[in-house]
Amino acid sequence: MLAYDIINKTKRGTALTEEELRFFVSGVVDGSVTDAQAAAWLMAVCMNGLSPQETSALTMAMRDSGDVLDLSAIAGVKVDKHSTGGVGDKTSLILAPIVAACGGRMPKMSGRGLGHTGGTIDKLESIPGFSTDIGFDRFVETVNKAGFAIVAQSGHLVPADKKLYALRDHTATVDSIPLICSSIMSKKLATGADAILLDVKMGSGAFMKTEADAVRLGEAMVETARHVGRQCRAVVTDMDAPLGFCIGNAIEVEEAVQVLRGEVGGTLGQLCLDLAAHALSMSDFGTTEECRKTALSAVESGAALERFAQMIDLQGGDAAITEDPSRLPQPKYSHVVRAARSGSLSTLHSEEIGLAAMSLGAGRVNKGDSLDLSAGIRLHCERGTRLSEGDAIATLYSSSVTDFSAAEQRVKNAVLLTDSAPQVHSTVRCVVE
Amino acid sequence: MLAYDIINKTKRGTALTEEELRFFVSGVVDGSVTDAQAAAWLMAVCMNGLSPQETSALTMAMRDSGDVLDLSAIAGVKVDKHSTGGVGDKTSLILAPIVAACGGRMPKMSGRGLGHTGGTIDKLESIPGFSTDIGFDRFVETVNKAGFAIVAQSGHLVPADKKLYALRDHTATVDSIPLICSSIMSKKLATGADAILLDVKMGSGAFMKTEADAVRLGEAMVETARHVGRQCRAVVTDMDAPLGFCIGNAIEVEEAVQVLRGEVGGTLGQLCLDLAAHALSMSDFGTTEECRKTALSAVESGAALERFAQMIDLQGGDAAITEDPSRLPQPKYSHVVRAARSGSLSTLHSEEIGLAAMSLGAGRVNKGDSLDLSAGIRLHCERGTRLSEGDAIATLYSSSVTDFSAAEQRVKNAVLLTDSAPQVHSTVRCVVE
Repeated sequence: MLAYDIINKTKRGTALTEEELRFFVSGVVDGSVTDAQAAAWLMAVCMNGLSPQETSALTMAMRDSGDVLDLSAIAGVKVDKHSTGGVGDKTSLILAPIVAACGGRMPKMSGRGLGHTGGTIDKLESIPGFSTDIGFDRFVETVNKAGFAIVAQSGHLVPADKKLYALRDHTATVDSIPLICSSIMSKKLATGADAILLDVKMGSGAFMKTEADAVRLGEAMVETARHVGRQCRAVVTDMDAPLGFCIGNAIEVEEAVQVLRGEVGGTLGQLCLDLAAHALSMSDFGTTEECRKTALSAVESGAALERFAQMIDLQGGDAAITEDPSRLPQPKYSHVVRAARSGSLSTLHSEEIGLAAMSLGAGRVNKGDSLDLSAGIRLHCERGTRLSEGDAIATLYSSSVTDFSAAEQRVKNAVLLTDSAPQVHSTVRCVVE
Repeated sequence: MLAYDIINKTKRGTALTEEELRFFVSGVVDGSVTDAQAAAWLMAVCMNGLSPQETSALTMAMRDSGDVLDLSAIAGVKVDKHSTGGVGDKTSLILAPIVAACGGRMPKMSGRGLGHTGGTIDKLESIPGFSTDIGFDRFVETVNKAGFAIVAQSGHLVPADKKLYALRDHTATVDSIPLICSSIMSKKLATGADAILLDVKMGSGAFMKTEADAVRLGEAMVETARHVGRQCRAVVTDMDAPLGFCIGNAIEVEEAVQVLRGEVGGTLGQLCLDLAAHALSMSDFGTTEECRKTALSAVESGAALERFAQMIDLQGGDAAITEDPSRLPQPKYSHVVRAARSGSLSTLHSEEIGLAAMSLGAGRVNKGDSLDLSAGIRLHCERGTRLSEGDAIATLYSSSVTDFSAAEQRVKNAVLLTDSAPQVHSTVRCVVE
């Protein structure tokens, strides 16, 4: 078998066999397939696509390129959730304790943020003492006790994705549904969950700009999961605007606690209840409608917040932050951005807001950059809010930056005030299952 | 300017500017564009093509990546000829002395053979004492005296093509008309000729399998030459069968001498006269018809053979081989392949014949392999010849191989004998100008 022939087949639109995809993926990992060959193949995939069978076979070959976790020591249906990346997306911090409080099991491995999108691991590390690197046994033990745990992804999972993603990132081969699908699903399948809930973001701040593309990606991932015998649902959600009011790290933990305290009326709270309903329903706790009610009760009773505190404690963190958020890192400096005119907030461009937060120290320009965990942005309005000239749009926070002018400019660029009120969509656009 | 954006543009079918192509090509040469980026772009070019303007700009950017020769010390119109590669193609050895004998000027840089196709430089090096590395000044001097010279291509010409070709060769991105065109034309333009004659091979033994593809390649090259103010014609010729009766190195020099001695009635001789007519016509010696007559006279008078002997002498070789071909390297072993049945020779697959010659030592499996210059194949028939069972099809020669079974099998595979006579085409299919 030759890498050359495999590249040629995809270039000509001829389907690859499972054996050919395994040969190519293992060659990428061991270096016998050169970077140039891998890049040429990735471009051919971007331009010609892959069939559902090829996408599944690629996903499984990538999964098997490294460790595959065995979660059988955790009783019950293990459900995992993945978001394709957003701004202000702290849903995992809210969803997981709700699911756990209702009897579900959520063993979760997460990543760090890069560029304008944040990472769950960075957010959790703003909790004093909290460890996202507790080893496999303590991870399992934490899930068995608290119902969930959130740790950083191990270095031995899916090395093929690390290699391919690094190549895609600099060869303009990122925006391909089969490649995005195999990248996400190989990691989810390697972490061993029985059911996978996908939050596919769409809109200006997301990879998928249109609902049609987001649905196509959701369908590809659901079909791949089905091919390998896993339950899977994809919820397509709006990422035209940031999720919730807070963007940063400590500030997002604080907002998560607020929602878990019962403030579930807003976009963020409603989305978390919707996602919890799907996660619980896939875990055999009833229909999605029944599970949504159970989820709401778990918040209202305080059980979900209790689970959050318990998990923090088991992972070495200061659980008292759930009572007193001022124990989280606090910013030294702040600056209020005000409306230059009156009007309805019709656009709140999430990528610009994410980049503004990054420039305050809340996000990374390059992999490995250290963060200012206290930095971030608190929005004082959402799409549809009516503002008068001089009203506060957002407060910017930082302990590392004193000159707020660049971030302020970005926030102002992100905002469009109009005379007429905008049409506001619900966050969940559709569900693919 | 970013390589990423350039790759993305070609992927999306957006035309690149001359500036962008120059940036990308110089990045390929200096390493700032990675192999993976170059390979991804090459694949995007294969799949989306390039416009004529982009192809010309790419060609010029590649030409300018290294030395560009100044041939102004040679008086008159300098004409160069390039063949896209064939089996038994010794036309340069015949064409150049004919053109020179008629007053034309042909300063020629050639390459070595690889795989099933031979190289003019290897053939010439079978002449005892002949040097293909005589330095630029002696090259110019030889052309001024003999009317032509044939030397190995210098290492400083078009480094971008060396890099890109090596990548294309292992990433399945060879078969793209803009890439083939820019590869050939950048080298032809760097060697400084005023007029360029292209022999575009088509058929089973060539890159271009169909006449339509060969014409498209010819048109792309002629258009590129015109963009940069050079005369150019492309002659599309048949490479379904080997050219002439001899395939190898010394044995092809011997056949060239035979043709120059006046045996111009066959396919090879006729093609050489046709090519000479175009080369002379582009050099302002009259119409193509007039020039063909001049070319024939130059052979019949012995003037062309004299020029060949003069050039060999000026490049340090034994000119007496033009009188006594037994002074060329002679094979130690030979073997006759005979027809297994009676019939008309309807197919003589040139690639298989080329591979058979390679296995006898006449060609290279890998770059840098040394050759058995005495090895080769002499065909005793051509397409349309009527054979009886037991008649000789070919004689195989080698000084390095004593077991002829593999080569014999290849020759037998290359041959198809049928009851009905095949349709035999003329070698020149069409001319693009």
